[in-house]
Amino acid sequence: MTGADIILETAAANGVDICFANAGTTEIPIVAALDRHPGVRAVLGLFEGVCTGAADGYGRVLNRPAMTLLHLGPGLANGIAYLHNARRAECPVVNLIGEHASWHRDADPPLNSDIRSLARTVSGWMRTTRQAGSLSRDTAAVIAASRVGQIASLIIPADFQASRFDNFRVVKKEPAYRSLDTALMKEAASAMTKGKKTAMLLGNRLLRKDGLEIAQRISAATGCDLLANTFPGYIDRGKGLPIVKRVPYFPEGALKLMSGYETIVLVGAHDPVTFFGYEGTPSRVIPDTTRTISIPGPGYSMMPVLEHLEDLVGKKKNALSTAEERHAWQAPSVPTGPLTSDVVCSAIAAVLPEGAIVVDEGITTTFPFYSVSHTSPSHGLLAITGGSIGYGMPCAVGASFAAPDRPVINIQADGSAMYTVQALWTMARENLDITTLICNNRGYNIIAVELERAGLKDFGENAHRLVDIDHPAIDWVSLSHSLGVPAVRVDDARQLADHMKRSIKEPGPHLIEMMVKT
Amino acid sequence: MTGADIILETAAANGVDICFANAGTTEIPIVAALDRHPGVRAVLGLFEGVCTGAADGYGRVLNRPAMTLLHLGPGLANGIAYLHNARRAECPVVNLIGEHASWHRDADPPLNSDIRSLARTVSGWMRTTRQAGSLSRDTAAVIAASRVGQIASLIIPADFQASRFDNFRVVKKEPAYRSLDTALMKEAASAMTKGKKTAMLLGNRLLRKDGLEIAQRISAATGCDLLANTFPGYIDRGKGLPIVKRVPYFPEGALKLMSGYETIVLVGAHDPVTFFGYEGTPSRVIPDTTRTISIPGPGYSMMPVLEHLEDLVGKKKNALSTAEERHAWQAPSVPTGPLTSDVVCSAIAAVLPEGAIVVDEGITTTFPFYSVSHTSPSHGLLAITGGSIGYGMPCAVGASFAAPDRPVINIQADGSAMYTVQALWTMARENLDITTLICNNRGYNIIAVELERAGLKDFGENAHRLVDIDHPAIDWVSLSHSLGVPAVRVDDARQLADHMKRSIKEPGPHLIEMMVKT
Repeated sequence: MTGADIILETAAANGVDICFANAGTTEIPIVAALDRHPGVRAVLGLFEGVCTGAADGYGRVLNRPAMTLLHLGPGLANGIAYLHNARRAECPVVNLIGEHASWHRDADPPLNSDIRSLARTVSGWMRTTRQAGSLSRDTAAVIAASRVGQIASLIIPADFQASRFDNFRVVKKEPAYRSLDTALMKEAASAMTKGKKTAMLLGNRLLRKDGLEIAQRISAATGCDLLANTFPGYIDRGKGLPIVKRVPYFPEGALKLMSGYETIVLVGAHDPVTFFGYEGTPSRVIPDTTRTISIPGPGYSMMPVLEHLEDLVGKKKNALSTAEERHAWQAPSVPTGPLTSDVVCSAIAAVLPEGAIVVDEGITTTFPFYSVSHTSPSHGLLAITGGSIGYGMPCAVGASFAAPDRPVINIQADGSAMYTVQALWTMARENLDITTLICNNRGYNIIAVELERAGLKDFGENAHRLVDIDHPAIDWVSLSHSLGVPAVRVDDARQLADHMKRSIKEPGPHLIEMMVKT
Repeated sequence: MTGADIILETAAANGVDICFANAGTTEIPIVAALDRHPGVRAVLGLFEGVCTGAADGYGRVLNRPAMTLLHLGPGLANGIAYLHNARRAECPVVNLIGEHASWHRDADPPLNSDIRSLARTVSGWMRTTRQAGSLSRDTAAVIAASRVGQIASLIIPADFQASRFDNFRVVKKEPAYRSLDTALMKEAASAMTKGKKTAMLLGNRLLRKDGLEIAQRISAATGCDLLANTFPGYIDRGKGLPIVKRVPYFPEGALKLMSGYETIVLVGAHDPVTFFGYEGTPSRVIPDTTRTISIPGPGYSMMPVLEHLEDLVGKKKNALSTAEERHAWQAPSVPTGPLTSDVVCSAIAAVLPEGAIVVDEGITTTFPFYSVSHTSPSHGLLAITGGSIGYGMPCAVGASFAAPDRPVINIQADGSAMYTVQALWTMARENLDITTLICNNRGYNIIAVELERAGLKDFGENAHRLVDIDHPAIDWVSLSHSLGVPAVRVDDARQLADHMKRSIKEPGPHLIEMMVKT
């Protein structure tokens, strides 16, 4: 038995069942061992961003960690952008990063680099294995650390992975949560009960069905509105679920929404700030005159916090029926005509199937999607938490592994999609039920929008060439075919709806290139 | 005039004429200003690895820095793998990295991350601009720092880029080299003059024609062999140029070569170590019994070092003719038959045009290429200095901008190519004279080779799925077409040679998918 076997047996014993990998020579013992441990499924990504993005998607849907296997510093670096998003989603992810043999590293071979400095930028927990004998302890520790909702990274020298063992003891470890500040919760409950216009801004881990049902009862008992940060990691919504308003992306909308409250209780949520700094606009969008009570999230088990809040405000029995009355179920209808942003959003909302997972990286195309899909069948939605573009297709891969029985719909901006186009190949190889909807507007349209906001009129032709993706236009249908994913191109709402329905019905991945007018 | 104008005017005044960019909202003022400063050409890459890899290729060919423009921490992270290679090539690169507005960053908006920790892992020099008034000084400093042969990174808050100025003074700055240790050079000259079997291992900056000609004269005067590290950043070679042996990749060959010398003089070169640690093999490949004299490279101007060495050993006049006799010019002939690794290497060497730049990322396919192309027409060769795979296509982009009149031939492994496939789009948009030769063996074949070496017999089917790139097979011809690059598929040597000739003759990019038998 090798050190690599110990790592995988410990991973399986601590609840990790999948490994998104792009390995090299320094991880070969783990690659070999994956064959002997079918309890940990190995999935190849043809670029590390696919692996970390998939781990992000998996963790967001299931709220338990997937593992990545990455090749030294450059392999980790290639995956950092989507670990950044996972960090902002408070998503559990376990990174195993191969390192040169412990006796070889000081020779500074070509692939040597400062892995720890890279890992530190995204990891809430990090360790380098210092002896082969601690592999089970280190593996259990990295997994337990991730489970409180953070990135945890273990750097493992190749020689320890290859070490031989006659026997070993599998270490199991539970995550260590911090304990609640009950005084703070009493203050929050009292403010919500007594206040006239209050809101509860729910953190990432409370936006699933179980959390939302409690939040809905608190809302019914106190009259508070339910809010979420601009880009939630995962939110359950649609038929039968409460409407949770997201803090708008642009500061005008955000400031307007937040100024309507006398008290806002942040329950494990970030104090919302504008995405970028806009001259003359404050960073923080809650007015200083609004009372803010912040119940911290990271490191805490949030469901007991919400349950305790409910106990404090007092139950109200028919919360669910009240909420259902508030927004009667009504299926949106399929629009007609050419594909504008609004038409795309309505068409998708109209045919969205029950139980779907929507990975939303539509950027400018999907600003309206959230509001038109409130009354779609119940579905989960993932957003671009940290702003690292290109997360959508990899995240869809991970979401599909997390929930193989749920159709995954990835609404995907074209500029962002090019970052991680390799993910299509993994969808094809693993025959994943993913519909990729490419919003082809032939540019980084969000930058054009920000330009307009900034009043930059002197933006000439050459500068435009840095934000337009035309000349040549990308042929997404051919690109998709070349990587094994069937694809079609659509120009109007009816075609889009028809092809979406077909794609959702047929097993395996499909790509629909939507020619969007801007 | 804005801060962004000051940055670009200073860049142009300090010799920077190109910027490989993938910008976002925090770099918008620089994007807008690029339109007003045609002296700095702006080139869009659809993924930051394309930008940094292109800057690496540009710097290696011209030995002066290109600039990158990157979006915050995630943008930089996406480019780190190829900055790692550039660092190992001692290649000058200037990174401009946008940062949140100085007053906004502390609010920790979603895209905020520790940019400095990321930049530190690849940069020999780094600074964050702390006030708009220092923009010209900072820009001059980052460029001067890069020119000694390192990565230099400047982090620039968005508000400073947008600041308004009525006038400013352009700062110019020269690089600061360290001074020579003449005692060490005397020792080296004496050892080479008196020794029977000696070698000079030349660092990255001495492998251009001007350095090689001096090295050749020193060799003629002293009888020393000329060596290079396993993966040189840029080397001139072929007809009329001396044969420089590279330290072999696998340790057996490296140990054998190095054990043949009584003295080895490292002239700005790394003390060679094995690429990975192999159990039972030392890290360092020069035997401890061999005298090693190490003249340091980084931070020094290396041409004066070599010139001084020549003065010390004494000139010998007919060095060039002696060297030419040693390997008579003989054009390799085009082989026939199906494409094995050997056949591919011989075919490329046979049709290589005078002045070509070869970007070699063939990995297992091109181990034999170097030796069969000694007698090809003179050409430059770039290698995978730091081992970050996927550098080839971006590096070819940069090389083509650096030398628009020279045909660029990129020999490109398929697994590596998928990392940065976005580079094809930039080749198409900019109509670059690049021939991309995809070595399609449908797998990460180097890992299979390393596995065999490690004697890992228990490597089963699932593990193989982590190193094989089949099911689905990638259709490189369709993929290339989808991004605007004409492409063909070839199965034998004759087709390969014919299509290479055609591709080199026709302007613009071409891709040839070589179906290689393993």
